Amino acid sequence: MATPAPLSPLAPKKYPALPSIDGVRFATIEAGVRYAGRTDVMLALFDEPASVAGVFTRSKCPSAPVDWCRANLAQGQARALIVNSGNANAFTGGVGAKAVAHVVEAANQSMGLEPERIFMASTGVIGEPLDAGKIARVLDRLAASAKPDALMEAARAIMTTDTFPKVATARVKIGESEVIINGIAKGAGMIAPDMATMLAFVFTDAAIAAPALQALLAKSVERSFNCITVDSDTSTSDTLMLFATGAATKRGAPAISDAADARLNAFKRALDKLLLDLAQQVVRDGEGARKFIEIKVEGAKSRKAAKRIAMSIANSPLVKTAAAGEDANWGRIVMAVGKAGEKAERDRLDIHFGKIRVAHNGVRDPDYSEAEASAYMKRAKIDIRVNVGVGSATAKVWTCDLTKEYIAINGDYRS
Amino acid sequence: MATPAPLSPLAPKKYPALPSIDGVRFATIEAGVRYAGRTDVMLALFDEPASVAGVFTRSKCPSAPVDWCRANLAQGQARALIVNSGNANAFTGGVGAKAVAHVVEAANQSMGLEPERIFMASTGVIGEPLDAGKIARVLDRLAASAKPDALMEAARAIMTTDTFPKVATARVKIGESEVIINGIAKGAGMIAPDMATMLAFVFTDAAIAAPALQALLAKSVERSFNCITVDSDTSTSDTLMLFATGAATKRGAPAISDAADARLNAFKRALDKLLLDLAQQVVRDGEGARKFIEIKVEGAKSRKAAKRIAMSIANSPLVKTAAAGEDANWGRIVMAVGKAGEKAERDRLDIHFGKIRVAHNGVRDPDYSEAEASAYMKRAKIDIRVNVGVGSATAKVWTCDLTKEYIAINGDYRS
Repeated sequence: MATPAPLSPLAPKKYPALPSIDGVRFATIEAGVRYAGRTDVMLALFDEPASVAGVFTRSKCPSAPVDWCRANLAQGQARALIVNSGNANAFTGGVGAKAVAHVVEAANQSMGLEPERIFMASTGVIGEPLDAGKIARVLDRLAASAKPDALMEAARAIMTTDTFPKVATARVKIGESEVIINGIAKGAGMIAPDMATMLAFVFTDAAIAAPALQALLAKSVERSFNCITVDSDTSTSDTLMLFATGAATKRGAPAISDAADARLNAFKRALDKLLLDLAQQVVRDGEGARKFIEIKVEGAKSRKAAKRIAMSIANSPLVKTAAAGEDANWGRIVMAVGKAGEKAERDRLDIHFGKIRVAHNGVRDPDYSEAEASAYMKRAKIDIRVNVGVGSATAKVWTCDLTKEYIAINGDYRS
Repeated sequence: MATPAPLSPLAPKKYPALPSIDGVRFATIEAGVRYAGRTDVMLALFDEPASVAGVFTRSKCPSAPVDWCRANLAQGQARALIVNSGNANAFTGGVGAKAVAHVVEAANQSMGLEPERIFMASTGVIGEPLDAGKIARVLDRLAASAKPDALMEAARAIMTTDTFPKVATARVKIGESEVIINGIAKGAGMIAPDMATMLAFVFTDAAIAAPALQALLAKSVERSFNCITVDSDTSTSDTLMLFATGAATKRGAPAISDAADARLNAFKRALDKLLLDLAQQVVRDGEGARKFIEIKVEGAKSRKAAKRIAMSIANSPLVKTAAAGEDANWGRIVMAVGKAGEKAERDRLDIHFGKIRVAHNGVRDPDYSEAEASAYMKRAKIDIRVNVGVGSATAKVWTCDLTKEYIAINGDYRS
């Protein structure tokens, strides 16, 4: 692996304090899966079976742990989550499936948990066999050291090329009782919709049955992790899981089994916000990122069309290199609108950088000042707004710029 | 514009001599459209009306000249082609259409040619109004200086960020008579299928009616210009036109009106080869390119699926940066296969770099030597072959690596 990149200039200035969540404990360890001198395996251990929901990569070549989690999800309960960094256990064939089975069997022996309630995720190099023994042999120690207040350590243990750990937290009421939602995520390249971040895990003490939890997660991911892109590449390992311990019932919180239950409304909003926060942190830590870019497309025929156009802009290397060069090159945005394949009215296109309208009705805005636009491009956060002039649907997506550092990081990742 | 990039290391070592084609003459001039100290307008002047065929960008926001050419193509005859570099006259609304009309009207005045037989193409910055007067006022001089043997100069006049002019030539028999095909092209970024190179023009003295010529061109482009990608971005200006002067009839060549005429077989093969040559030159001059990469996908369900998978690999920033880093990172190729969305059998995937099989039946080839693969990656031309194990269809595409120079070139193109 290359020398770790310096901290992203887009990193958050501070991290929130993460309150403990009743019913789940965390532990991390240096298992030497690939990295030396840092933690690389984390365990989340549930005191009682927790409801679990998950969404995974749409890659046709998913990793062995993704296969495993998908199969286990049907029964809806989790007792443990084991995550390693350094090796994705992807494209490892039968050997990869055996490595998962090895770890799960060891967890079963060590902690007495049912295999179908043990979830696993792996991130890192793909195509290299995972030495499952290295993980199996640390499980006893992990289980013995698990504690409620170690989520930040967990966030650090799952990092690969990330330059900062990604955490988010929320407090929200269900009925009269407050519940907590905590989340962690890791990026940082191979980030594109369907899914986005390679790994994200969210924990709550709310009591929500697995089918309802799955419905909530599936909806929330559409406007968060599925609306970000770093480099248009989709990992074989993308995994987002949501665990609900139900421990809040001890404080009087209701147990909810229907996703449409009105008592969940505030929870849904908080979950949406938390997932979007984590997803945006992934973009802010995009490999080599120096600019955080929000792209809003308006005036499209449908939300789907709006999102496709927005993603075409967000994934355009020419748009992203222009942002890196602090160049208000709106011509390339037109190019990206044009190549998206969705309906757009060239002669009604409006483009804004922040509040600066650079193009109006299909031509350069006569009042547009290049100097003003150039000054705007020096900001760390850039808002691009495009009206394509054919309807009323909108979509927002987030991306980062494409810099020489991205090339440097990815040109020698394995070396 | 940035300082011109140094000559691509993938540039051809020598250029072919370009024989003159009866019936068409070329001229170039320094019109100062944007660049100083270099030619930037070229004229191709046909002594008699030539058959013409064309394929254009699929962008929903095409440039004004593309709109113009598309409309003119219906009548199938050309008397002149005017091309400028430095300004693409794209996203310039009604002003852009007027600029084309201005140039065409001036050509009509100057040379007495019918407007609907005058074709125009523009390449360069988009979104900036084109000063048509600069082109209009040099037309007299261009017409007066046009000569049969100035095609190489024409190839130079249409360059933008290209580091070398792109030319190709072929001699082939139609019936008993030899005809000539000459072509020129320019890249160098914003290159993706549907279309690929921003501009390419091919001239022949064969006598082929416009509808047949169009059929030949549409077929040939599918396996050449539509099979290359530099950066996945699609220009608003992509234009490929094929002109047949028919002058070879004076030497006894037959006049052909049916694309299925068997006498065209050798011509078709020569045209395919010439377009592929030009298309590959565009890739070899991809912005910042240091490696020329051929990607062959085998074992797919259909040619369409094979091509989609091949393009997914070719457009993956992670695959392209790995190539730049001379890293035999086949895991990223799996990733790109997986994200293509087409059927692939993970546990039957085979991947070769050149003759080195790095993955077999879904896992790392046990006999694969990292040292051997690394040595292979140091070559300037890299062949990647992937068998996805579900059928028998194949596709080949070509791309280049993604380097820091690409970022440098595109980060300050307008400055």
